[in-house]
Amino acid sequence: MLRIINRQLDAERELKRIGDRTFSGEIEPQEKAVKEIVTTVKNKGDEALLDYTAKFDRQVLEVVNLRVSGSELDAAYQQISQDLLHAIQLACQKIEAFHRQRVPRSWVQFNEDDIVLGKRYTPVDRAGLYVPGGRASYPSTVLMNAIPAKVAKVPRIVMVTPPGEEGKINPAVLVAAQEAGIEEIYRVGGAQAIAALAYGTDTIPKVDVITGPGNIYVTLAKKMVYGTVGIDSLAGPSEVLVIADETANPTHVAVDLLAQAEHDPMAAAILITTDEKLAYQVQKEVTRMLEGHPRKTLTEKAIANYGLAVVVESLEVAAYLSNLFAPEHLELEVSDPWGLIEKIRHAGAIFLGHSTPEAVGDYLAGPNHTLPTSGAARYASALGVETFMKHSSLIQYSDTALKQMSSTIQILAQAEGLPSHGDSVRLRTE
Amino acid sequence: MLRIINRQLDAERELKRIGDRTFSGEIEPQEKAVKEIVTTVKNKGDEALLDYTAKFDRQVLEVVNLRVSGSELDAAYQQISQDLLHAIQLACQKIEAFHRQRVPRSWVQFNEDDIVLGKRYTPVDRAGLYVPGGRASYPSTVLMNAIPAKVAKVPRIVMVTPPGEEGKINPAVLVAAQEAGIEEIYRVGGAQAIAALAYGTDTIPKVDVITGPGNIYVTLAKKMVYGTVGIDSLAGPSEVLVIADETANPTHVAVDLLAQAEHDPMAAAILITTDEKLAYQVQKEVTRMLEGHPRKTLTEKAIANYGLAVVVESLEVAAYLSNLFAPEHLELEVSDPWGLIEKIRHAGAIFLGHSTPEAVGDYLAGPNHTLPTSGAARYASALGVETFMKHSSLIQYSDTALKQMSSTIQILAQAEGLPSHGDSVRLRTE
Repeated sequence: MLRIINRQLDAERELKRIGDRTFSGEIEPQEKAVKEIVTTVKNKGDEALLDYTAKFDRQVLEVVNLRVSGSELDAAYQQISQDLLHAIQLACQKIEAFHRQRVPRSWVQFNEDDIVLGKRYTPVDRAGLYVPGGRASYPSTVLMNAIPAKVAKVPRIVMVTPPGEEGKINPAVLVAAQEAGIEEIYRVGGAQAIAALAYGTDTIPKVDVITGPGNIYVTLAKKMVYGTVGIDSLAGPSEVLVIADETANPTHVAVDLLAQAEHDPMAAAILITTDEKLAYQVQKEVTRMLEGHPRKTLTEKAIANYGLAVVVESLEVAAYLSNLFAPEHLELEVSDPWGLIEKIRHAGAIFLGHSTPEAVGDYLAGPNHTLPTSGAARYASALGVETFMKHSSLIQYSDTALKQMSSTIQILAQAEGLPSHGDSVRLRTE
Repeated sequence: MLRIINRQLDAERELKRIGDRTFSGEIEPQEKAVKEIVTTVKNKGDEALLDYTAKFDRQVLEVVNLRVSGSELDAAYQQISQDLLHAIQLACQKIEAFHRQRVPRSWVQFNEDDIVLGKRYTPVDRAGLYVPGGRASYPSTVLMNAIPAKVAKVPRIVMVTPPGEEGKINPAVLVAAQEAGIEEIYRVGGAQAIAALAYGTDTIPKVDVITGPGNIYVTLAKKMVYGTVGIDSLAGPSEVLVIADETANPTHVAVDLLAQAEHDPMAAAILITTDEKLAYQVQKEVTRMLEGHPRKTLTEKAIANYGLAVVVESLEVAAYLSNLFAPEHLELEVSDPWGLIEKIRHAGAIFLGHSTPEAVGDYLAGPNHTLPTSGAARYASALGVETFMKHSSLIQYSDTALKQMSSTIQILAQAEGLPSHGDSVRLRTE
């Protein structure tokens, strides 16, 4: 049952507990396991990948089967419905259109004394996308990772995903990859896949950036190889926070909470409302909808452990609590969502008004669904085209400009005790 | 002596060795030490800070002395020359002017069927700047970290830096902080300072983002707390790569190599040139200038271990080798630097032409001097205003728009086995 809380202090404590759920347990055993996997793959390459795939995925592969073949890619189109293909294509279009907005562009600026300053943006050479297997093997994950990389014009994009039964990969995932323009796909998952992308093996190329969600092993492996490669973020379980006033429809709020909870027993679904009656109606609806829910067991678990309804006296307090939690997804189910937005400081994505359930953003509104979790919205943003780009600062001084700045630079160099810094200017301008 | 290499394969091998120098050694003992420090600070707060400061910095402080007082801040102005003050002020102005260019701005876009999409940019609530002590206690480091945070409008910015003799902090560092608008400064360094910023203590506030360079302990601590807070990057020792043709002045190239080497015995200084004669002239000049260099011992060590001149047959090969190395600083000391730039794929900052020594960018050209090292330029960029900002995606659908997309979303939700996702749309549109 969805718990209801009325006191702000209790709410703050509960929100903190839920926010800390990801890394609250003891993770040293996993860290140790991941370290061993990463080191072994770094040293033994493909051989280690096959060993770990046999051990963890219980699939016995040979090196030649690591890469998904052209005929498997073709066959995937026969294994999904036309309706699904068209849905994937429409999502693809809409996600691409959004990501093409405000792509970083190189610029230079000409200043007095012929000083030229600027930034030059370029894509990374190679990107590696991780797509989870099993319960979370989603075509939408593929689109949300692949399309920004494509828009960034990354020359080589590879995808890794663990093999399922008989080494198979979800055909919808294979179709989504191809629709997004990716055909280099390897059948490997877990920490071993992350290590392969970070260090390269005979079969799998070393990449510059690794993105995509995964379980705790994948996440710890990403953290471990960060610095050798770039990563998008350390993804934790998903979460939604709904701020609702008396204009919200309790059935809609309830189904949105369940849409989050059904992802994962660790998912969090939180309602903050100024309307106590609404809280009880939502509680009732959640209970009703859980009956006969196809994913009842895990969804119920998420609601019981990380579900919460908080009744507050004003939308200001609701915004305050939401900012404390810094949710991945924030729904503003209130009469004036644009009026409330000014009070929101931290949220991965904000869904405004009564006709914008989070599912719209999960699939096809356009903005990326890879968002900061576990409070990371305090400092991080959605995955985007810039995840796959970087810039070089550009600086050109003329003779005149250097002379102009010469004494200032020498004073600073002297203060820092770096004589050659000063000399590099002095020798050019004396 | 600066080594000269003529064969491309040797050059590739040497560049790889130099690029890998940061983490090539065994760092497990340091990792273990850092883990203990971070955990202890997390659990014991200020008490642990004082203990570690006594142990590592050999300074016995009390809690009330952790924060640098107003009178110390005032006094710092009396301890530096007017010339240095004016140099800091000019650098401040020029760095701020550059960082005010292209600050991320919120935007929304109105689409058909009353769909509103956009991104809302906000600063982080709190930023923590780390400024090293000892050999690398530089006012320029303060400016390059503080100014982007100020331009981002971060409401609370705190600085930490280890105490020197008698608990003192470099007055130029204190003045630079104040000129950049920072007055909350704590006398603590090392991994313990990073832990304090990540978890908070009674005295030091928990922040959202930690930036700034440091030694291996600081860097490992930043990696460890990444996920709890955001970080700028994992900084390694500094490096310059100079591409020069026959138009370059050997004395200028030599002094630029030394200006990098004088930072740190681990610093790397690399010349790639199409002109063999230049290589030998630079070698001779480096040797000559090292005589009587005030930081001879460490500079010589850097040149011996991580200095290199490579003679190549063309600027294309030079660019190829440079891209392999992905240098933090790249100088193009060639007749047509803008012609060469198209071939450069990875570099933190590019200094164009004969009158742009790296020192210009280190101090006051404007672009940030906090740049990706150790090959991270393959995927990362300079510190910037965006390091202290994040965005929330904005999505608003109208009734009509949701109806329009209803069946597509339901098809995708069904394919992913997430019934409540589909229901959240179906229940709103049926």
